Amino acid sequence: MAVKLNPFSSLSLRPFVKAYLGKLSPKSDGFRVILRTMSTQQKLNLRGIYPPIPTAFDSNEDISYEKMEYNLKKWDTIPFKGYTVQGSNGEYAYMTYEERVEMVRRVREIVPKSKLIIAGSGCESTRDTITLSQKMAAVGADAVLVVTPCYYKNGMTDLAMEKHYTAVADNCPVPVILYSCPGNTGINLSGEVVIKLAKHPNIIGFKDSGGDVAKLGNIVHKTAGQDFHVIAGSASFLLPALAVGCSGGICALANVVGQEVCDVQTLFEQGQQKEALTLQHRLIVPNTDVTRKYGVPGMKAAMEWYGYYGGPTRSPLQPLSEEDVNKIKKDFQDNGLL
Amino acid sequence: MAVKLNPFSSLSLRPFVKAYLGKLSPKSDGFRVILRTMSTQQKLNLRGIYPPIPTAFDSNEDISYEKMEYNLKKWDTIPFKGYTVQGSNGEYAYMTYEERVEMVRRVREIVPKSKLIIAGSGCESTRDTITLSQKMAAVGADAVLVVTPCYYKNGMTDLAMEKHYTAVADNCPVPVILYSCPGNTGINLSGEVVIKLAKHPNIIGFKDSGGDVAKLGNIVHKTAGQDFHVIAGSASFLLPALAVGCSGGICALANVVGQEVCDVQTLFEQGQQKEALTLQHRLIVPNTDVTRKYGVPGMKAAMEWYGYYGGPTRSPLQPLSEEDVNKIKKDFQDNGLL
Amino acid sequence: MAVKLNPFSSLSLRPFVKAYLGKLSPKSDGFRVILRTMSTQQKLNLRGIYPPIPTAFDSNEDISYEKMEYNLKKWDTIPFKGYTVQGSNGEYAYMTYEERVEMVRRVREIVPKSKLIIAGSGCESTRDTITLSQKMAAVGADAVLVVTPCYYKNGMTDLAMEKHYTAVADNCPVPVILYSCPGNTGINLSGEVVIKLAKHPNIIGFKDSGGDVAKLGNIVHKTAGQDFHVIAGSASFLLPALAVGCSGGICALANVVGQEVCDVQTLFEQGQQKEALTLQHRLIVPNTDVTRKYGVPGMKAAMEWYGYYGGPTRSPLQPLSEEDVNKIKKDFQDNGLL
Amino acid sequence: MAVKLNPFSSLSLRPFVKAYLGKLSPKSDGFRVILRTMSTQQKLNLRGIYPPIPTAFDSNEDISYEKMEYNLKKWDTIPFKGYTVQGSNGEYAYMTYEERVEMVRRVREIVPKSKLIIAGSGCESTRDTITLSQKMAAVGADAVLVVTPCYYKNGMTDLAMEKHYTAVADNCPVPVILYSCPGNTGINLSGEVVIKLAKHPNIIGFKDSGGDVAKLGNIVHKTAGQDFHVIAGSASFLLPALAVGCSGGICALANVVGQEVCDVQTLFEQGQQKEALTLQHRLIVPNTDVTRKYGVPGMKAAMEWYGYYGGPTRSPLQPLSEEDVNKIKKDFQDNGLL
Repeated sequence: MAVKLNPFSSLSLRPFVKAYLGKLSPKSDGFRVILRTMSTQQKLNLRGIYPPIPTAFDSNEDISYEKMEYNLKKWDTIPFKGYTVQGSNGEYAYMTYEERVEMVRRVREIVPKSKLIIAGSGCESTRDTITLSQKMAAVGADAVLVVTPCYYKNGMTDLAMEKHYTAVADNCPVPVILYSCPGNTGINLSGEVVIKLAKHPNIIGFKDSGGDVAKLGNIVHKTAGQDFHVIAGSASFLLPALAVGCSGGICALANVVGQEVCDVQTLFEQGQQKEALTLQHRLIVPNTDVTRKYGVPGMKAAMEWYGYYGGPTRSPLQPLSEEDVNKIKKDFQDNGLL
Repeated sequence: MAVKLNPFSSLSLRPFVKAYLGKLSPKSDGFRVILRTMSTQQKLNLRGIYPPIPTAFDSNEDISYEKMEYNLKKWDTIPFKGYTVQGSNGEYAYMTYEERVEMVRRVREIVPKSKLIIAGSGCESTRDTITLSQKMAAVGADAVLVVTPCYYKNGMTDLAMEKHYTAVADNCPVPVILYSCPGNTGINLSGEVVIKLAKHPNIIGFKDSGGDVAKLGNIVHKTAGQDFHVIAGSASFLLPALAVGCSGGICALANVVGQEVCDVQTLFEQGQQKEALTLQHRLIVPNTDVTRKYGVPGMKAAMEWYGYYGGPTRSPLQPLSEEDVNKIKKDFQDNGLL
Repeated sequence: MAVKLNPFSSLSLRPFVKAYLGKLSPKSDGFRVILRTMSTQQKLNLRGIYPPIPTAFDSNEDISYEKMEYNLKKWDTIPFKGYTVQGSNGEYAYMTYEERVEMVRRVREIVPKSKLIIAGSGCESTRDTITLSQKMAAVGADAVLVVTPCYYKNGMTDLAMEKHYTAVADNCPVPVILYSCPGNTGINLSGEVVIKLAKHPNIIGFKDSGGDVAKLGNIVHKTAGQDFHVIAGSASFLLPALAVGCSGGICALANVVGQEVCDVQTLFEQGQQKEALTLQHRLIVPNTDVTRKYGVPGMKAAMEWYGYYGGPTRSPLQPLSEEDVNKIKKDFQDNGLL
Repeated sequence: MAVKLNPFSSLSLRPFVKAYLGKLSPKSDGFRVILRTMSTQQKLNLRGIYPPIPTAFDSNEDISYEKMEYNLKKWDTIPFKGYTVQGSNGEYAYMTYEERVEMVRRVREIVPKSKLIIAGSGCESTRDTITLSQKMAAVGADAVLVVTPCYYKNGMTDLAMEKHYTAVADNCPVPVILYSCPGNTGINLSGEVVIKLAKHPNIIGFKDSGGDVAKLGNIVHKTAGQDFHVIAGSASFLLPALAVGCSGGICALANVVGQEVCDVQTLFEQGQQKEALTLQHRLIVPNTDVTRKYGVPGMKAAMEWYGYYGGPTRSPLQPLSEEDVNKIKKDFQDNGLL
């Protein structure tokens, strides 16, 4: 049967193959053969908007999967391309490895198969990142998002980054998306390294939260024709990122006003520049509130106004003062979002 | 005669009025009356591209006005909206006040009246900035570009910036353009301050070299309807800046390949998104070479390949090694610009 | 029996009590009672030098406890006050929680009881930090060293730091040492917060690798009479730190030339200022090599010359080039250390 | 006559020779001969404390030489080694070249010949720095203090710094003191460059306001035997700087409580470590108030409480709020200085 000869002839077989790969040793020949075969297949098309979903905690800072499911059902009506699970906004840094994997497993069970699941699997060490990436694949992630290691800042040279990501991509049964988040990590993954790594058959994209649109444009330019996707890491520069050729966004604001974030891309792609610009303009300040300015606590506070469960963060992140919450609310109101 | 009653009914009268103002004490009633009248007139339309022209030095690091004129004649064939004189790329920091004024005077004499002259007049102290701005107006500048003071970094608060720019604008016979250049100054003029200052009748624009396109977009949004112009301070993010509503660019790269920089804006405004994007992509790396990476020495080296006079910089800026010059050349070649 | 009434009357009982505490729920009354009792006891005297020992990895990047033991036996001849285990130089960021605890357990078994074991137990979340601190106590750590959380940089406010450290100290059966390491974390724990936290009965010291000696001096000043110890986090400023009243050092260089680092403190305390200064001078450049400049790979390379096992780091940290190793060697030679 | 054969046999002849040099072309043989002769003479001994005196402005921000003289007379009772004129605390960045020279000329006339005058002569360009340095010498400066140029940050490489300072020292009739002030300039003059430049016969010292005492110690170490003086640029780290071998301080706080700053050095040199430490501790917070935290406006406010004339700064620096002034006052009181 064709299926047996070419297990990737249909996208719907990917989960099966990934599960199979998850049982093979990454060092076995079988693993590498399948990986190589996968690489020759059509790469995942990442174009679209993904909310980097928060982790729902109860008042004891324990995970509430019930609240998470509630949110996912609500988001389901919005034309997202998929979900990013255990990214920075998922407070992955405050979760154990087991919690990170379990949450991805549950999200995969809840959301329709048509939605891509991008799982954050970055750890400080290369070995942990490989292990976690394999586990994410085994529980159904379609791709993994791998943030730059960052603790030993002086050691995170271009060479170290290249070797790290190459090792992860070589050993990961699903495609890898590079992730630079200098605001949190203090590490800015250089354009040169991204362009080099884009040649790896199992590295299919780059999310950048830094906001240097010229850098994004140049990466789009230098990776043209390689099915490599550059993704805006924040809604505040989504439209200019699209204007330089990016494929979409993984944007905290999409957790709050997902339809509007999707609309920016739709309007842009339909050539309605003026409408896209007007909408983009209205999103900048609210976006800053739920990212750079007030972070995850700000995003969770804003989610509540739209009927989502926000809830507390884990400590040491602190809840916002009522005054700060009101400032954010005013910014959403002033821009016609509330 | 109408002209006498309304000296601003025709743009061609502006130089006359400015010269007249230059002779009045800025504290006299006459000065303020004229300033107020001017403010109610149509503001300067800054839309377009301006090269921030370098200062031509001979081998002794003395100014060569001959070489400068040579360059200006060559640039004259390119559809620039005007010229920025004594900006960062003009090595203003290495010139005496007298040299800064004299160069503006000479440029004004050489270039056609149809071209706007934007003169860099920023100094560390408010009093020097006012004096220099008035001198720039007196020798024919159409507007002044005022970089943030930066030496006492901790003292350059939002309040200090507001008072500084307000005092300058109150006392300057020509319109003021705010200028944030964090790469050189270490000071990032905040969007909030820019939005406040945009209400001043004599502050007509903002040049930002920082590259935070979301910030630029938000300023465009919040100053809508105020004839306030936001200008990209670098060609590397010109297209995304236009995409969020900016008016043009003051771009070092325009000294080298001015037509291409102008073309990005023309293509964008004609709705030729794809062509604009392709051209923008080709400019990013060459632009980085002549700005962030190699600075003024890089820009001057590149100018030579296109028949302009580049020449040395003033010390302590050092000439590039041959190896570095060749790297830049390769980047221009790789992007089809040479 | 006296022992029963006051389990802390003898230092040798501490391990027993700590082990007992490790079995109690931190929220139980018993736990808090014992903790309170401990707090009223004499605080640990931290004065002295501690090498922050590296983790010995074999060529597969697996831990070699044999090599670790070999190193510990060699260090045992040096008059260290104790050892820091699983600090930054222990590559704690690349170890699983289980590995971190196991290594502390083994070190405690190997080194004489007279040596203090300070265990790095900092995690990003408050809850993980508490759990790991308790585990460190249970396996014999005399104190825990808690690095600032750092991922969500904007959220790491003074208030968040206060609450984090207070919660950890409230729930930790052994004393807590605050740890600021801005070079790695990007977070500079403010002097104000340290001075506040020094009042907590279970917070007994502060290690600072930032090198701002004025800050250290001020903390010594403001915590005078509180048995609070300020510890230099690098040998490059050990003497000036002692000069402003610090108690000693946790210094990477002590892994390499431990006797010399101890000698700086001894000479200083004996009033031999000139000799202390001469020795301190000789340590600065070698210290920079094994810390800021080449980091853990540099330190491990240098250890080999003195008969210790250095070995590889975990990835993504990269081994040094031969050229860099030779540069470090030359610096050690030039300063009479080799 | 001896004087003719060796014009430098007596320190009192220096002004005469410097005045003479001021009339020679720096490129003339005579100039270079004298300069070479000077270099072989005993270098200036910089050991001691120097207040970097503020510029006294009246309510119009014009210089009040009367107020300046008043302050100088008051300072004269304190055992300062001399005065730094037109340093950062002199608001040199807000003064014209003419004002900078004139102020040095007047200070020289007022203060006793036994006090050294160190004049700030740093400009952005090498040529202006040379000219200004020569003018400072001509009006009686004993040495010039040359801050790093800083505007074109990427261009201020080690090579550029070496060439800049060498050119200045080659052409300056009085000795040159290097000056690194990263808080204001964003440029940290590297220890390697300082050590190289210390070999120049006309470069006699280095003032560092950065506070990296390990760096200072290493420079002392590497320049031992060269009559090269390393000077603490802030009173907050004066004692630890002395402990690593520095020669004294140019400290803003000395404008306010000069005797206490001098006492730190005296106590240290007399071996009264404990008393030195106690006094140093009391100075740290007040020092931070008049430097890093509130800058020149803070220093000027504090001067008033001690009977000096503080007065306003030039704009754009803003006066402090009453609340901030009270905070500073409380810090001085809490440390027994008021």
